[in-house]
Amino acid sequence: MSPAPPATPGAGKVPVGVLVSGRGSNLQALLDAAADPTFPAAITMVLANVPGAYALERAAAAGIATAVVPSKGVPREDFERALLHALGPVEWVCLAGFMRVLTPTFLGAFPGRVLNIHPALLPAFPGTHGARQALEGGVVQAGATVHLVDAGVDTGPILAQGTVAVHDDDTEATLAARILTLEHRLYPMALRWAAEGRITLEGRRARVALAPGESRWIVGE
Amino acid sequence: MSPAPPATPGAGKVPVGVLVSGRGSNLQALLDAAADPTFPAAITMVLANVPGAYALERAAAAGIATAVVPSKGVPREDFERALLHALGPVEWVCLAGFMRVLTPTFLGAFPGRVLNIHPALLPAFPGTHGARQALEGGVVQAGATVHLVDAGVDTGPILAQGTVAVHDDDTEATLAARILTLEHRLYPMALRWAAEGRITLEGRRARVALAPGESRWIVGE
Repeated sequence: MSPAPPATPGAGKVPVGVLVSGRGSNLQALLDAAADPTFPAAITMVLANVPGAYALERAAAAGIATAVVPSKGVPREDFERALLHALGPVEWVCLAGFMRVLTPTFLGAFPGRVLNIHPALLPAFPGTHGARQALEGGVVQAGATVHLVDAGVDTGPILAQGTVAVHDDDTEATLAARILTLEHRLYPMALRWAAEGRITLEGRRARVALAPGESRWIVGE
Repeated sequence: MSPAPPATPGAGKVPVGVLVSGRGSNLQALLDAAADPTFPAAITMVLANVPGAYALERAAAAGIATAVVPSKGVPREDFERALLHALGPVEWVCLAGFMRVLTPTFLGAFPGRVLNIHPALLPAFPGTHGARQALEGGVVQAGATVHLVDAGVDTGPILAQGTVAVHDDDTEATLAARILTLEHRLYPMALRWAAEGRITLEGRRARVALAPGESRWIVGE
């Protein structure tokens, strides 16, 4: 793939970088949202730590600049410095299926400006396999959470959450798919709040200046 | 208080004991539900481990037999044997603000037949101070869970859950009150399922045979 040159965000758009490792379905949800002229953010760079990640093709198809910054066998600090260099002048960073834990080397460059989405109702079921953990935990509803990233694993301040039903006949795959559909609604919503400067922190609690009719809680299907 | 003699449950009613330690607002919700002639369970005994617990007055006012089985300074096994003795011939046991962890000495006498209610969306925020933990954790909604009791703390199979909004201006007291209102809806619902024999276990997951229009998930206010 020959990467596109970095996009210039439209006038008044907040430039955002997205970090990916895999298929990038949440990247697609963000790209689709950003295609709306009224969306306040523009995705200007998509970085993968895994060569050949399918998310890179989605970015290229949308005319977005991409780069691969390999992590395998690279000292963590060197990797994160390379990420920072490749990102260019973005204001916010979204993790979308990015399978590396970031350290203060990276996070310090974007204090309170890195978003992640997690397939569980945090603080329940952090880490991997959110859907499987929800099934094994026997909860009545599963969910997803958008949060600011801190140095822990899925521990940062929560911005938005939502739920989906767990069905008696759910498998990990069917439940994960239902959660993913919810994620695709939650993530663009939270990025909008971020780009519009509507998020503030009060200790470990995030506040969002909500517009009438908006909610930080989505009931999925 | 001179305790009433053990009540004889009405024909076809499942006899239930309730264990309390404090004010017993969830006991009241169960008593109110059981006052409905169509409710399938009858509360026949209320036991407190704390002398003078206000819940005992609620039980007495409803004409229910009560007893105090002191736990303070009593070896755990002796305490639990005394509880079993005092309970009489009940089929299910509900914990309602009962502040002791039960061991297999007690639980073995009611396998899969002890219910508890917890003021959080388990497995998030087990233990004490569910509302405080929810505030400090910055979650978008708080909740409550009815579960079967196992030897862990708030780890048993989940029967019913519900959510309430967290408001920006919530204190621990205002949020706990909102959760409590939700608890008062959830607990009688789950006891009905228990008394009607509609709960089955599949590993650690509980199944409930739901009637049309019923849900194991309640959206509170």
